[in-house]
Amino acid sequence: MKKKIISKGSTKPKVKPPDEEAAAKKKKSLIMPHEQLLINNREWAKEESIKDPEFFHRLAHVQSPKFLWIGCSDSRVPADRITGTQPGEIFVHRNIANMVVHTDINLLAVLEYAVFHLKVEHIIVCGHYNCGGVKAAMTQHNFGIINKWIRNIKDVYRIHRDEIDFQTKEDERLNRLIELNVQEQVMNLAKTSIVQKAWKEHKRPHLHGWVYGLEDGLLKPVCEMNHGDHLDPLYEFDDL
Amino acid sequence: MKKKIISKGSTKPKVKPPDEEAAAKKKKSLIMPHEQLLINNREWAKEESIKDPEFFHRLAHVQSPKFLWIGCSDSRVPADRITGTQPGEIFVHRNIANMVVHTDINLLAVLEYAVFHLKVEHIIVCGHYNCGGVKAAMTQHNFGIINKWIRNIKDVYRIHRDEIDFQTKEDERLNRLIELNVQEQVMNLAKTSIVQKAWKEHKRPHLHGWVYGLEDGLLKPVCEMNHGDHLDPLYEFDDL
Amino acid sequence: MKKKIISKGSTKPKVKPPDEEAAAKKKKSLIMPHEQLLINNREWAKEESIKDPEFFHRLAHVQSPKFLWIGCSDSRVPADRITGTQPGEIFVHRNIANMVVHTDINLLAVLEYAVFHLKVEHIIVCGHYNCGGVKAAMTQHNFGIINKWIRNIKDVYRIHRDEIDFQTKEDERLNRLIELNVQEQVMNLAKTSIVQKAWKEHKRPHLHGWVYGLEDGLLKPVCEMNHGDHLDPLYEFDDL
Amino acid sequence: MKKKIISKGSTKPKVKPPDEEAAAKKKKSLIMPHEQLLINNREWAKEESIKDPEFFHRLAHVQSPKFLWIGCSDSRVPADRITGTQPGEIFVHRNIANMVVHTDINLLAVLEYAVFHLKVEHIIVCGHYNCGGVKAAMTQHNFGIINKWIRNIKDVYRIHRDEIDFQTKEDERLNRLIELNVQEQVMNLAKTSIVQKAWKEHKRPHLHGWVYGLEDGLLKPVCEMNHGDHLDPLYEFDDL
Repeated sequence: MKKKIISKGSTKPKVKPPDEEAAAKKKKSLIMPHEQLLINNREWAKEESIKDPEFFHRLAHVQSPKFLWIGCSDSRVPADRITGTQPGEIFVHRNIANMVVHTDINLLAVLEYAVFHLKVEHIIVCGHYNCGGVKAAMTQHNFGIINKWIRNIKDVYRIHRDEIDFQTKEDERLNRLIELNVQEQVMNLAKTSIVQKAWKEHKRPHLHGWVYGLEDGLLKPVCEMNHGDHLDPLYEFDDL
Repeated sequence: MKKKIISKGSTKPKVKPPDEEAAAKKKKSLIMPHEQLLINNREWAKEESIKDPEFFHRLAHVQSPKFLWIGCSDSRVPADRITGTQPGEIFVHRNIANMVVHTDINLLAVLEYAVFHLKVEHIIVCGHYNCGGVKAAMTQHNFGIINKWIRNIKDVYRIHRDEIDFQTKEDERLNRLIELNVQEQVMNLAKTSIVQKAWKEHKRPHLHGWVYGLEDGLLKPVCEMNHGDHLDPLYEFDDL
Repeated sequence: MKKKIISKGSTKPKVKPPDEEAAAKKKKSLIMPHEQLLINNREWAKEESIKDPEFFHRLAHVQSPKFLWIGCSDSRVPADRITGTQPGEIFVHRNIANMVVHTDINLLAVLEYAVFHLKVEHIIVCGHYNCGGVKAAMTQHNFGIINKWIRNIKDVYRIHRDEIDFQTKEDERLNRLIELNVQEQVMNLAKTSIVQKAWKEHKRPHLHGWVYGLEDGLLKPVCEMNHGDHLDPLYEFDDL
Repeated sequence: MKKKIISKGSTKPKVKPPDEEAAAKKKKSLIMPHEQLLINNREWAKEESIKDPEFFHRLAHVQSPKFLWIGCSDSRVPADRITGTQPGEIFVHRNIANMVVHTDINLLAVLEYAVFHLKVEHIIVCGHYNCGGVKAAMTQHNFGIINKWIRNIKDVYRIHRDEIDFQTKEDERLNRLIELNVQEQVMNLAKTSIVQKAWKEHKRPHLHGWVYGLEDGLLKPVCEMNHGDHLDPLYEFDDL
């Protein structure tokens, strides 16, 4: 993968006079990658302020996103970019393979904050095809502490083994597991007392399972769960 | 905060003829917010493909980010946007108040994957001023399961109480705690066997603590730790 | 349940002259329950020293138990008492419903310490009939933070639903789930890299699943797993 | 340490005729250690039934312990034995170094169950001198996943460094850290919303910090916290 850190916060290509460009290139080679991020940041902040002088001021005073995004840490799936949203619109948690683990205080704190304090209306669990975390779970390799995380994915495989193994090709099995994993994580959300309480009291949030295609940049909805939908009674609380 | 979901993936304002605009507005009011994200996504994917027909194809085949970003879930701090980076450049974990908790398998899996599999060169812990999670930790309110997460921040307060309480104003105390919290999380990274092993074997990653200003959009470096820097011997492993 | 805190460390009933007994009773009513434990402790320590003057000295210098016991916190299932073992013989972890949760650092630290540092030869997962934790998991009640723990048991139910629901009576379903839960926890041990590594290198530990009967005080073996036994390949590491 | 698995559940030495003893010894050498536990169990259950035919029946129907014991997994510190208590009297959680970690669902589930469902009156955190877990935390060795657990102890050391390092001898430092660790874990209990809520509503439980001496078998109280005692306001909830 060719990768470049562009010096503009926007995606607009800017044409510089040849000399200036050569000087900039030379200068760039002397700066560390993380310094480049800081330079980009200053340019971006400046540009935003010019375009909309009230931009930061407005944002600074309140956060009221409509969405919670639970996505993969993968660098190729930035929530805001692929959904065309602005700062302030999506509350974000990203971990390896977009998991919702019921004993994970990290995720649970995010979820409770988003549902009861920010009052988000939608929660999107977004996986992506060819996910390295899911792929790792399909191997027999020892990944150290990562084992403890991807055991959750192995358990999804175990439950849906018949359907996955029905696929004849390796990458079809992988991609089917990725979809089923997203579906299980959406159900894991529905199994929390947090979501069930919000459903009962506010008829929100709506839960969505999507999978992102690295090859085409498109988001594909794979499942949805809402207030009133059937939930396995084993996991349903009757006294929230 | 006025908030709008723009229908373009880019930040370029587009002028539409009055009639078309009215029709678009009307149509928009009938679609659900999450559907709008999917519409934005299709437009974004199309635009990217037009600008660079190889864009997705290149990205799909390899992920080799130089950075791991550990940031806050806050919707106003999207890692890629504020650093002017492209999909593929930053591996991202976001949780409430950008914490590095040593028993948190979620974060530890991200860290190990980023350091040993993706071989990132830099890890950035990025807090932001006026952080709701840190603010919550300074109150005496009961936040349910969130209590378990922000106890970690209370412990940072406890350790640096003198320095924080030295500030006379409420928001100065808050912002000082935010900075000290970032600093502690950077040290928490340095205390892991994962980072120490990578330091020993590869002299990377470089650890950076930054704080983002919602009011001006600027990133402010507050600390840094590298291979060879002094670490409290209590937390140093001598046999990695 | 009639419950008494006996003032002797042993189970030998001691006959006291009537007057002394009355005085002791009177005195007892003035002391707090936890003080009674301390009084019991002093008597026990004294008795042990009299019986075997070297007892504590021997124990103090080394710990080399052959067993790790993973049992329920239930007060009626004290590991050493029901197995007729002495201090020094069993390394013990007890939690609600004797669970082996793969993301639980608490249990994992116990397991690694027992297997690689103490080199235990046997690990016993011991459940018990009429377990309150398992019973709770079969209801739809909201138990607060306990929900997060017993979700693991609900997942065992989900996997073995057909077999459990085949039982016609409520308490038969409960007791079948208790047995299947023990079996799953033994398999959870076998799925850890810790146990698999020890199996490969040392052909130990032997894993045992037992269920204790509160009604008769008897331990009933329900399953066993050893080095070389078949393990679902999905969970088998091939490069430890 | 000389260690023997005695074949009796009681501590009463039984004299056997020489021939019978020899035969028993021979037989013993052919049985596996875990089988011996099962044999011991059958003898114990039989003896208990003879002494008190109602013993198991009474116990089976209700559990109402007055105490929650949070102790070390160490095989030499069996809660019931050293406190001279009977089955049914102490609800038990044991982990490495008797820690109360605020993100640990395992312990939190035990705590909530004990406080709100069993309504225990006392919680005892019991450490012991020469604790291997605490000792490990004072070294710079890499213990694998155990690192994640004993980091909590290193953090106790960090906070009390002056007081610990004031001790001139290695084992004095160790034992001082063990005492301070117990004290911190008692405070960790007091910092939970679970304990604070019970204090407010029921003026219980009483919290006790004890340290057990392996050398003399004695329990030494080191601290105590009760409803109404001063608690760092940073950790006090004002709206439970």
